[in-house]
Amino acid sequence: MPDGFDIDRLFDGIRARQTAAIGRAITLVESRNIQHQAYAQDLLNKLLPYAGDSLRVGISGVPGVGKSTFVETLGSYLIEEKSHKVAVLAVDPSSGRSGGSIMGDKTRMDSLSINPDAFIRPSPSSGVLGGVARATRETIIIMEAARYDIVLVETVGTGQSETSVADMVDFFLVLMLPGAGDELQGIKKGILELADMVAVNKSDVYGDKLKHAVRAYKSALHIMADASQHWHPPVVSCSGLTANGVPELWDRIQKHKKIMTECGEHTKRRKNQRLKWLHAQLSDQLLQHFYNDPQTKAILPEMETALMKNDLTVSTATAKILSQYINKN
Amino acid sequence: MPDGFDIDRLFDGIRARQTAAIGRAITLVESRNIQHQAYAQDLLNKLLPYAGDSLRVGISGVPGVGKSTFVETLGSYLIEEKSHKVAVLAVDPSSGRSGGSIMGDKTRMDSLSINPDAFIRPSPSSGVLGGVARATRETIIIMEAARYDIVLVETVGTGQSETSVADMVDFFLVLMLPGAGDELQGIKKGILELADMVAVNKSDVYGDKLKHAVRAYKSALHIMADASQHWHPPVVSCSGLTANGVPELWDRIQKHKKIMTECGEHTKRRKNQRLKWLHAQLSDQLLQHFYNDPQTKAILPEMETALMKNDLTVSTATAKILSQYINKN
Repeated sequence: MPDGFDIDRLFDGIRARQTAAIGRAITLVESRNIQHQAYAQDLLNKLLPYAGDSLRVGISGVPGVGKSTFVETLGSYLIEEKSHKVAVLAVDPSSGRSGGSIMGDKTRMDSLSINPDAFIRPSPSSGVLGGVARATRETIIIMEAARYDIVLVETVGTGQSETSVADMVDFFLVLMLPGAGDELQGIKKGILELADMVAVNKSDVYGDKLKHAVRAYKSALHIMADASQHWHPPVVSCSGLTANGVPELWDRIQKHKKIMTECGEHTKRRKNQRLKWLHAQLSDQLLQHFYNDPQTKAILPEMETALMKNDLTVSTATAKILSQYINKN
Repeated sequence: MPDGFDIDRLFDGIRARQTAAIGRAITLVESRNIQHQAYAQDLLNKLLPYAGDSLRVGISGVPGVGKSTFVETLGSYLIEEKSHKVAVLAVDPSSGRSGGSIMGDKTRMDSLSINPDAFIRPSPSSGVLGGVARATRETIIIMEAARYDIVLVETVGTGQSETSVADMVDFFLVLMLPGAGDELQGIKKGILELADMVAVNKSDVYGDKLKHAVRAYKSALHIMADASQHWHPPVVSCSGLTANGVPELWDRIQKHKKIMTECGEHTKRRKNQRLKWLHAQLSDQLLQHFYNDPQTKAILPEMETALMKNDLTVSTATAKILSQYINKN
């Protein structure tokens, strides 16, 4: 076994919840080295029968909403008051490029990061959402096999990363800030439609604005069609700083889990997530192979230029580009 | 030339706005016969330099909103009061299957269908959105080369067809019905985000409900981010039946065109639409080829079953399915 990866030893270490083994397994999963990826798949397929038992909660919100403080407070509450083992992962496709990533600075989660019942992992820095999401999904398997029973997946409130995280969790929580009408304009397309709950954060510093915001989000959620007939996303307020409202918020998440489990949607959601992920991966990787094909690279720019100038139809351009790739098959 | 298609004659007939030639060209474009499609591309590439000069307006709304009546009234107004030549196309991927398609019964547009300055074409009945959208995009080229200067593209308010139509027009109008809170819940995901304007229809039959609906849609649009910094989608009311509000509605569309042309977004939107469409077509057709591959068909069901049972990771399943297809390349 090159590189010192011993699958059986890693497996045992993960099951025993040894931090070093878990860290090495995640490194393996995040590696882009082909050989490492093969080992990672062997390991993951071995861990799979021991995974699946956690409650997976996605937490989203734009920078400045107080996500890190909220996660720190929620995580500490779950460990100290509810005796859970908590894993915190992050999906931030920008972290590789910008450097200024969520949880890039672990000190932002002071007490949680040194808590022996918590495991915190910053976003993989692949820089491509597909890669970051894949690594995070597979890290969830490792965490569950290591018997962490709550997995919090944090994501930035921008781009496609929210959809990606919503597709890997049982519950998707959206943190918002209070603010008058104009600030509400900043709501990203589709984000409310992903939410299983909206929490207006920083209730400690906002007064009347809080009620207004809660009402506005309730009204916005009211005109959206619910994803499940068994659940209408509630809007709550809380303070990540003082923990005010956090226990009640968690009660709601527990209630959601109970309802979804009883009506069978919990299992169904996970099965659908796996199938959706399979087809997304097939599509991503096939297109990646196609766009990396030397002949595609050679012809695409000239076809795009011709299209910009309106010199040929899209169908003609498509046929010209695809024929060479497909004819090889 | 088999099948009696003579490209040069068709070209001349289209330029002379001969109904028979236009009809035959559309049939060619809609045909799934490989040879026909090759002729269609020859014809379209010849027509392309004469296309592009119309104002393309998408009109969406759920069944019952009064779309046909509205289009009939708007089309007649544009011809009689504004001396336009109006083409009406439809995108309805369900028309092939259900039979109950929009404009399937031309008598629903009594006066417009016999107006010599109008051309009405029901949805192609391919049954696959990609195919319907492609045929409609290419029919727009035919219509413009035939010097129709307004192209109205009607679509049903369900499924992906709205996004598809929004991506082929200069202006996307969404028709809505008045109705109290609960009825607003029926708003489809994302539809308001596509709208360049929302028109609450049937103002003739609704009283106080009308104002409430206009306010509700305004409020919903207020919390969405605008697609352009130069345009905030207005909410108006109108009656397709009495034509009340229709001239004012058209004035707004004209205003939009003026603003977008002056700031350069009109041209930019069309260029982006062509590039987006190219990559969507490349992706669609490549995936279609992949999923139709006999080996893919053989292995996919067993992989899906294994995933449902959680017997292997998604990455492993993806690799197994893709390797045989890609290795042929």
